[in-house]
Amino acid sequence: MTDQTEFRPEARAPRGFQDRRAGDIRAERAILEAVARVYESYGFEPLDTSAFEYADALGKFLPDADRPNEGVFALQDDDEQWMALRYDLTAPLARFAAQNWESLPKPFRRYATGTVWRNEKPGPGRYREFIQCDADTVGSARPEADAEIIAMAAEGLEAAGLPRGTATVKINNRKLLNGLLAAAGVSDPGQKLGVLRAVDKLDRLGPDGVRLLLGPGRKDESGAFTKGAGLNAKAAEAVLAFTAAGSGDRASTLDNIAKVIGGSEEGDAGLEELGRIAQALKGLGVGEDQALFDPSIVRGLEYYTGPVFEAELLLETTDEKGERIRFGSIGGGGRYDDLVARFTGQPVPATGFSFGVSRLAAALRAAGREAGQARRGPVVVLVFSQDDMAQYFAVAGELRAAGIPAEVYLGSSGMKAQMKYADRRNAPAAVMLGGDEIAAGTVTVKDLDLGRALSTQLDDNAAWKAERPGQATIPRAELVGFVRRILEAGE
Amino acid sequence: MTDQTEFRPEARAPRGFQDRRAGDIRAERAILEAVARVYESYGFEPLDTSAFEYADALGKFLPDADRPNEGVFALQDDDEQWMALRYDLTAPLARFAAQNWESLPKPFRRYATGTVWRNEKPGPGRYREFIQCDADTVGSARPEADAEIIAMAAEGLEAAGLPRGTATVKINNRKLLNGLLAAAGVSDPGQKLGVLRAVDKLDRLGPDGVRLLLGPGRKDESGAFTKGAGLNAKAAEAVLAFTAAGSGDRASTLDNIAKVIGGSEEGDAGLEELGRIAQALKGLGVGEDQALFDPSIVRGLEYYTGPVFEAELLLETTDEKGERIRFGSIGGGGRYDDLVARFTGQPVPATGFSFGVSRLAAALRAAGREAGQARRGPVVVLVFSQDDMAQYFAVAGELRAAGIPAEVYLGSSGMKAQMKYADRRNAPAAVMLGGDEIAAGTVTVKDLDLGRALSTQLDDNAAWKAERPGQATIPRAELVGFVRRILEAGE
Repeated sequence: MTDQTEFRPEARAPRGFQDRRAGDIRAERAILEAVARVYESYGFEPLDTSAFEYADALGKFLPDADRPNEGVFALQDDDEQWMALRYDLTAPLARFAAQNWESLPKPFRRYATGTVWRNEKPGPGRYREFIQCDADTVGSARPEADAEIIAMAAEGLEAAGLPRGTATVKINNRKLLNGLLAAAGVSDPGQKLGVLRAVDKLDRLGPDGVRLLLGPGRKDESGAFTKGAGLNAKAAEAVLAFTAAGSGDRASTLDNIAKVIGGSEEGDAGLEELGRIAQALKGLGVGEDQALFDPSIVRGLEYYTGPVFEAELLLETTDEKGERIRFGSIGGGGRYDDLVARFTGQPVPATGFSFGVSRLAAALRAAGREAGQARRGPVVVLVFSQDDMAQYFAVAGELRAAGIPAEVYLGSSGMKAQMKYADRRNAPAAVMLGGDEIAAGTVTVKDLDLGRALSTQLDDNAAWKAERPGQATIPRAELVGFVRRILEAGE
Repeated sequence: MTDQTEFRPEARAPRGFQDRRAGDIRAERAILEAVARVYESYGFEPLDTSAFEYADALGKFLPDADRPNEGVFALQDDDEQWMALRYDLTAPLARFAAQNWESLPKPFRRYATGTVWRNEKPGPGRYREFIQCDADTVGSARPEADAEIIAMAAEGLEAAGLPRGTATVKINNRKLLNGLLAAAGVSDPGQKLGVLRAVDKLDRLGPDGVRLLLGPGRKDESGAFTKGAGLNAKAAEAVLAFTAAGSGDRASTLDNIAKVIGGSEEGDAGLEELGRIAQALKGLGVGEDQALFDPSIVRGLEYYTGPVFEAELLLETTDEKGERIRFGSIGGGGRYDDLVARFTGQPVPATGFSFGVSRLAAALRAAGREAGQARRGPVVVLVFSQDDMAQYFAVAGELRAAGIPAEVYLGSSGMKAQMKYADRRNAPAAVMLGGDEIAAGTVTVKDLDLGRALSTQLDDNAAWKAERPGQATIPRAELVGFVRRILEAGE
């Protein structure tokens, strides 16, 4: 038997889960507020669904699976039904739309911000919990709905802090490659999947490597052989020509695609959709640098049925070792016309875009555009005597009333530790109210910003520093003005 | 074997979980933003911990329990460790503080907003997932830290929309009753628990019922007997006198308590703490109507070790049947000096306040103070012809650029359905750009706000309505100004 009073659990977050501190939270809040403003301006309304869905509603599982824990966190409710934590915000939206279809305005436009969970092997920088932000239009088959989602993605990235030219949304259409393969006589689903997988490796292997994977297969450096999709040489070249059809602007990319796509119903439909997306993007004022057609984009192998989008950071960034890296994808989406039908049997077209908030925050950090990080701490009022606590609180209250965050030190340590605390809080100033000051109606303010500026050798405002007092005893009535000058000098 | 293609899951949220729509989300966001501003002004920084904690860290469980699913949602990770979704934000804070104690500024002041989960039987209005907002100071034993938390709670409720006089924070101290019982010779933990449980029923049973529960026991209307705490008559009267010591102001309540508390070390300590809280509340500018001492407050039976707080809505509200009800508690907290020590063995004093965001939103609704609900929808641009889509998007873009949310209708229905859609979206106006308008450089605007105003018989601005056109065709350049006038008239 375990003795409860003696048991001491180890204080640690579960594997693959992290605690997030003020700097990260503020940066992510700034992103979400900016993006929400954009999405609301397009008439999208917020929706929150719950963390749990019934496992069968998540779509990855057979309903009779014994323990559907693959990839998701699942548990059995006390009525024996399996529930799982959502792994994205799209599956819950499809469930919500199917459940409420009759009563929703159609098309239904919603955005959502929420935590999602993946039951995957954790690793450095690989977390099992993160926040996504999605915008989706459910109930519109129009390519203009896709174009609008693309416009919102581009405007959202800009609002979040990525200036024009630092990120772009790449657009493709599943129907194009499908049509091309149909024209080439390829109809086997396994073969088509192999083609998608091969194209998805273009970045890494280049056209020559992909050519092998489209055809018989490829042996890598280690000697391991990957079986290819088994296309004949002509079909493989057609696929490669298609993936290389991207050009400087949307109109000429469309022309290029038309030349290589061959003739098929599905290919023509895909081309027509992209044409309408191009027109709508123009009407929406989306620049050629903000969104382009790129036939090499595959965008996972999941549930997309038509246009797919991928937002990419264009800036080269450096990793921890200072080496240049391509940051790559910062979000994506596409059209998924079959997800709601899973529930209702009725086709309900839908399209959307999703990004991971931490990933976008990292992109902003990489681009040197991080918002909200360098927040000043509160002014700290030091504590000399228990008898004068009310005085300290009154001074802190005065500062707060003037819009300046302030706190009274509430630990039990002496002056030196209190000053160290104020410094660790990143306080702009420490306020001292000793017995002498209280008797004289004065207050002493220590300018901690100045101390930090001196210690980091920022000599660009030497004049101010020469005349800026490190510490001053001033009439109590001048406190707010004095602290405000310190805050303004540091901005 | 199940045929996957035929299986259609039912679209439903899991039992006890809910979807939340725009109105509720906006109301809760407005609360959280207002409260966060207050908490940050006191120098509290945001912290997010993960949804999961190891079950042993949540403190309710034996580490060797086979399936610790009582009250929480728990599952076993692939390394066999039990994890559970957090049921509050205090246990994760204690784990975080213990894990990072060496590197934190001390005292550590943080606020947190997050979803918590309770594995309880769901019922009408009883959800198993909700959002809490907490503020805590870890590492200060000073009663001033409690006072500050109380001040923040009071100021936060006011900032959230409850004006002075509609809510109050009631304060008690566990040490008082403990001390009183010690003075009366009661030291058995079971007996003390019985006393707390009896006092907790004061609201429902009144002093006479509680007197029975303090003594031998009580038979209710159904004849069922509840065993009492077994106090003798003198001790029971002392407890009742204590719970009735609340008075109009904090100073006189303290005097009353001092008279009935008897002499004991713990009681004197509790009284001394309340005295210092009273002084600090004065320094913090907390009015007598915002926070009062109330010895009848028990605040659950959990981990509190000293002062306890309970925020109450003072307004009488009406339930769905129109009957008057006491809304009651809208948040609470207190001092818990033993939670961090569970991990470290070192005592770390802590105090905090927590409220449920939906509960506070409901209180605001009950008080007629709900924020963020009556948001206007976007202006809807109607669609006449696929050929003119770019025009529609350009008009919507113009409105958005002027700060007016706007969308192009992207369904496939005719005019009547489009107007109905605009109305369901709560659009202030519908914009029509037919072939004639486009040729003439004009635009037709239908004032949907006016239609709604007429239908709800709001006759207070009859003059404007008399001259306000229900629909007008105007030069395209005047669109933004025209729509803005509609928006302003509706404010």
